[in-house]
Amino acid sequence: MCDTCGCHINEHTDTKTVEVHESLLAANREQARKNRAHIEAMGAVAVNMISSPGSGKTTLLEHTLDRLAGKMKIGVIEGDIETERDADRIRKKGVPVVQLTTGGACHLDAPLVHKGLHALEHQSKDGKFDLIFIENVGNLVCPATFDLGEHERIILVSVPEGSDKPAKYPTTFHGADTFVITKIDLLKYFDFSLDEARTEALQLNSGLRILQVGAPAGLGMDDWITYLQELPAR
Amino acid sequence: MCDTCGCHINEHTDTKTVEVHESLLAANREQARKNRAHIEAMGAVAVNMISSPGSGKTTLLEHTLDRLAGKMKIGVIEGDIETERDADRIRKKGVPVVQLTTGGACHLDAPLVHKGLHALEHQSKDGKFDLIFIENVGNLVCPATFDLGEHERIILVSVPEGSDKPAKYPTTFHGADTFVITKIDLLKYFDFSLDEARTEALQLNSGLRILQVGAPAGLGMDDWITYLQELPAR
Repeated sequence: MCDTCGCHINEHTDTKTVEVHESLLAANREQARKNRAHIEAMGAVAVNMISSPGSGKTTLLEHTLDRLAGKMKIGVIEGDIETERDADRIRKKGVPVVQLTTGGACHLDAPLVHKGLHALEHQSKDGKFDLIFIENVGNLVCPATFDLGEHERIILVSVPEGSDKPAKYPTTFHGADTFVITKIDLLKYFDFSLDEARTEALQLNSGLRILQVGAPAGLGMDDWITYLQELPAR
Repeated sequence: MCDTCGCHINEHTDTKTVEVHESLLAANREQARKNRAHIEAMGAVAVNMISSPGSGKTTLLEHTLDRLAGKMKIGVIEGDIETERDADRIRKKGVPVVQLTTGGACHLDAPLVHKGLHALEHQSKDGKFDLIFIENVGNLVCPATFDLGEHERIILVSVPEGSDKPAKYPTTFHGADTFVITKIDLLKYFDFSLDEARTEALQLNSGLRILQVGAPAGLGMDDWITYLQELPAR
């Protein structure tokens, strides 16, 4: 009870919200399970890329598509709140791409990705892929809660964002398979400690694989490409 | 209906979620209205700072506190999912500061800020302030939906994030009063178009005030400080 304005915090609403949220998540998990089977029937493994806005997901994808051209059959599902801009960038690389716009929602969910999988299949003669990238909405928090049916979850943090981000966004790191530090060509301009970022990420999730890339400059790209090429065999 | 895996998208869950979300937002709006009265009773105006993780909110605050020392009585409410790190940085400037950790939630809400206001009051002899900064959780999406009782809402986008961010996160820009482009000392290293960012932000919200800062280098800081000093008179 607040002495100044006499108000209460509405506990009832909170409880009700938690219940519905659980029901939503259960439905999402069920759809994610089906998506995973769906993706495997397409012959593919899927990667869910999660990061803040502007950490360089689309730029990394552009350079990745150049390097894997003719080596792996790739499809891309782009998630954004609004605009087709990311899909337009990927389309120029000549690979099948689907833009999902959430119309306000802060994350992709499994039902939406399910629609994306169908749209992607229609862009391939035999409906088959080796690797499907799902680029999530730029958000380092909410996407972590929603399994999309991916086989591999990658968290990206760029050097300009700061090396304190693993400790400040622990849930996202708990659920990830791989942590990619991007824009490492900019290390000299920023107070970013690779040691802090790596150590604190591993404290949250000791099984995390950690990679470092500077895509436009080609830094770390050989390791990144090898990692992607080995995913289907896992 | 999906031919491959035979699943449906769960429309029922979505409808129920929308209803509860509306109820939650209504309760939040009511608490925000009370917070605003509470803040005014403290003699203050409050600013809600919203941005992606790592756009430089805390760094801008540190430099702002240096410049306004002895000129305005300032309190700071820091929002994070985990850690006291931002509050620790602000505390070194000798101003009252409260760290709110959401324990997973992707945004501050009005009930949580209400607790923060009380905690802030206890750090001031007369409970009075001129200006209260509320630094939201790093997230360019979800905080936009939650009125905290602030008088001024500021959206920050840093140069490394890219000038396409206003168009890609329209809801956040619709509800803002001021758009601050941060880290402008880095313009020479990034493909960031000030013209694109400004034009597309104004297309979304023609009443938006736009400022540009590079806090550590002192760029644009005079305009930023003048803007803050004039807030209480509005």
